[in-house]
Amino acid sequence: MTQFSFELLAEDGAARLGRVHTAHGAIDTPAFMPVGTAATVKAMLPGSVAATGAQIVLGNTYHLMLRPGAERVARLGGLHKFMNWPGPILTDSGGFQVMSLAKLRKLDEDGVTFQSHHDGSRHRLTPESSMDIQRLLDADITMAFDECTPFPATPEQAAVSMRLSMRWAARSKAAFVPRPGYGLFGIVQGGVYPELRADSAKALLEIGFDGYAVGGLAVGEGQEAMFATLEVTTPLLPRDKPRYLMGVGRPSDIIGAVLRGVDMFDCVMPTRSGRTAQAFTRRGTVNLRNARHQDDPRPLEEGCSCPCCRDHSRAYLHHLIRSEEILGPMLLTWHNIQAYQDLMRSLREAIAEGRVAEFAAEAARLEALGDIEVLRHAG
Amino acid sequence: MTQFSFELLAEDGAARLGRVHTAHGAIDTPAFMPVGTAATVKAMLPGSVAATGAQIVLGNTYHLMLRPGAERVARLGGLHKFMNWPGPILTDSGGFQVMSLAKLRKLDEDGVTFQSHHDGSRHRLTPESSMDIQRLLDADITMAFDECTPFPATPEQAAVSMRLSMRWAARSKAAFVPRPGYGLFGIVQGGVYPELRADSAKALLEIGFDGYAVGGLAVGEGQEAMFATLEVTTPLLPRDKPRYLMGVGRPSDIIGAVLRGVDMFDCVMPTRSGRTAQAFTRRGTVNLRNARHQDDPRPLEEGCSCPCCRDHSRAYLHHLIRSEEILGPMLLTWHNIQAYQDLMRSLREAIAEGRVAEFAAEAARLEALGDIEVLRHAG
Ligand SMILES: [Zn+2]
Ligand SMILES: [Zn+2]
Repeated sequence: MTQFSFELLAEDGAARLGRVHTAHGAIDTPAFMPVGTAATVKAMLPGSVAATGAQIVLGNTYHLMLRPGAERVARLGGLHKFMNWPGPILTDSGGFQVMSLAKLRKLDEDGVTFQSHHDGSRHRLTPESSMDIQRLLDADITMAFDECTPFPATPEQAAVSMRLSMRWAARSKAAFVPRPGYGLFGIVQGGVYPELRADSAKALLEIGFDGYAVGGLAVGEGQEAMFATLEVTTPLLPRDKPRYLMGVGRPSDIIGAVLRGVDMFDCVMPTRSGRTAQAFTRRGTVNLRNARHQDDPRPLEEGCSCPCCRDHSRAYLHHLIRSEEILGPMLLTWHNIQAYQDLMRSLREAIAEGRVAEFAAEAARLEALGDIEVLRHAG
Repeated sequence: MTQFSFELLAEDGAARLGRVHTAHGAIDTPAFMPVGTAATVKAMLPGSVAATGAQIVLGNTYHLMLRPGAERVARLGGLHKFMNWPGPILTDSGGFQVMSLAKLRKLDEDGVTFQSHHDGSRHRLTPESSMDIQRLLDADITMAFDECTPFPATPEQAAVSMRLSMRWAARSKAAFVPRPGYGLFGIVQGGVYPELRADSAKALLEIGFDGYAVGGLAVGEGQEAMFATLEVTTPLLPRDKPRYLMGVGRPSDIIGAVLRGVDMFDCVMPTRSGRTAQAFTRRGTVNLRNARHQDDPRPLEEGCSCPCCRDHSRAYLHHLIRSEEILGPMLLTWHNIQAYQDLMRSLREAIAEGRVAEFAAEAARLEALGDIEVLRHAG
């Protein structure tokens, strides 16, 4: 039976090449996890997600506990079977979404009571119930239940919030039922305050987790503050455990975080952008709704292997978006997930070859160029 | 170079097995053409449409002339290249949609002036401009420009409308530019009046077309009147040309029409139903929004080869629909197109084996059974 473990295969500066082993397969790191909030990566068949090279997807405890319900998912064979994703799955703890989506939430030492944003029904999440739900969902990686410290927060506010999260982390660890190949990650909090981040990391290390997430970033603090926080946080985390930066980010955020020792990422950006006509390319984001594309026979991104770029022109994508056709989000989502997976593969190759700094510089140069020149048709 | 032609391969009563040869490939008949209104079969990648066994899709002149514009499609290499459908394409003439969708339409002897339902811009369609647009789109099968007689219509109204359509049919033929592998279909009108249908068929035969459509049905007259009209119309059409019943229909409509000598069909029903949680199965339609499915681990249709049925449970489909996830329409559309293509393949096999009447009886028996019994979970 597979034990949950992390192999560190290579280092290039602070950047790491690795492999996480789970009950449902391995994950090559640095890895990007497409977000499958409600048991579906929006607008993608699961086989298409896998075809991009994605090895793990993320599910949301808050959404799934409300609909279809964790017990129902368990009766139907767990989340892997339910959503037809046989590979590894990470679930968040529910804490972040309760705070951002639920109504009438009330936080106390024990946990949080809230009303569903669907129907106003009352629910409660605690470290214990979050562990229970994630076990019912059959998550390969369970996240400790925590409070995502809001931004901005004073040092005092950030400290109070972080200390609550550390008490909840200990209760999460106590409630987590160990199984071979299944892991539990703790989450470092502490806002943008290095001392609090250090206290948080120390508290988590004393409890002991299978991996360590950095939470409370990408909440409005900006890339510079995020990188600064990572620089004081990742050195405090054990070298032999995976590190996960939650909810990040744009390609340049990911590259910068990999350079600072992060192994795993998730973000709704590629999928959400795919539904709003925004595409990620090596030369920055492209808005396919713009009329500059209406006569352009070229692919969205030359050389991309995805069906969007392989089979269709920018003119067609523009037409689909103007016509509000479902195929538009389908193709752009596919491309964006492919672009993110291609980025992660390129990062892994660069780390293996000891040239991740050069890769990052070249990626920044390409992005700064902006989109290819507009074509003017002769007609 | 392929000539546009129809091979009659077998007959079983009035039902026919055949093959239509076009510039972009052959179509086995009886055939169902998925509707690709705005250059996309909604919620389907073109490769997925082909994977269901569909050999030809339909495009809409009215929609495409307004957006992205026929000249633009032509500049971009034609509709096959634009929508990445290398197989045969049939386009309608625009007449039906002008009457059902456009604003402030004004019909005269020469044609029809109307305002776009998108932006109110003024446009005009005549037999000549419709032929021109369909040529720019590069349709393998061009439809004559006609007026779809409304239902109900008095014999006098139906006669006036039909005679206008016949004059337009002659002008369509005169304006159509013949190319090898490309065909032009005339459209029989005349409402539910046998004498008018006979007059219309006679007028079209005198003009001479590569195929003959039956128009003005499935507009509210009911299945019985539709079948009665077919019974007096198809015997008047040449045996060696394909026959196309426009805008039809439910599986039982298609089976009944095949028994009455029809070779080709199109309908928005499988795609539109896929976006409203309705699935077609051999045991009738199934509404996946219904809570009876919420704990059902069984596939939508046992034995169906589509990804929806192969990879997912009814419980999951129900969840996707309740959660308004795009994957719900994607999977149900795929299933519905697969179900229609499977029906057509079964009809072709039954005709080849001289048992189409038995097949129709068995299909009717299965449909009358209704959906499989609900499962009650033990939990
Ligand atoms: Zn692409
Ligand atoms: Zn199916």
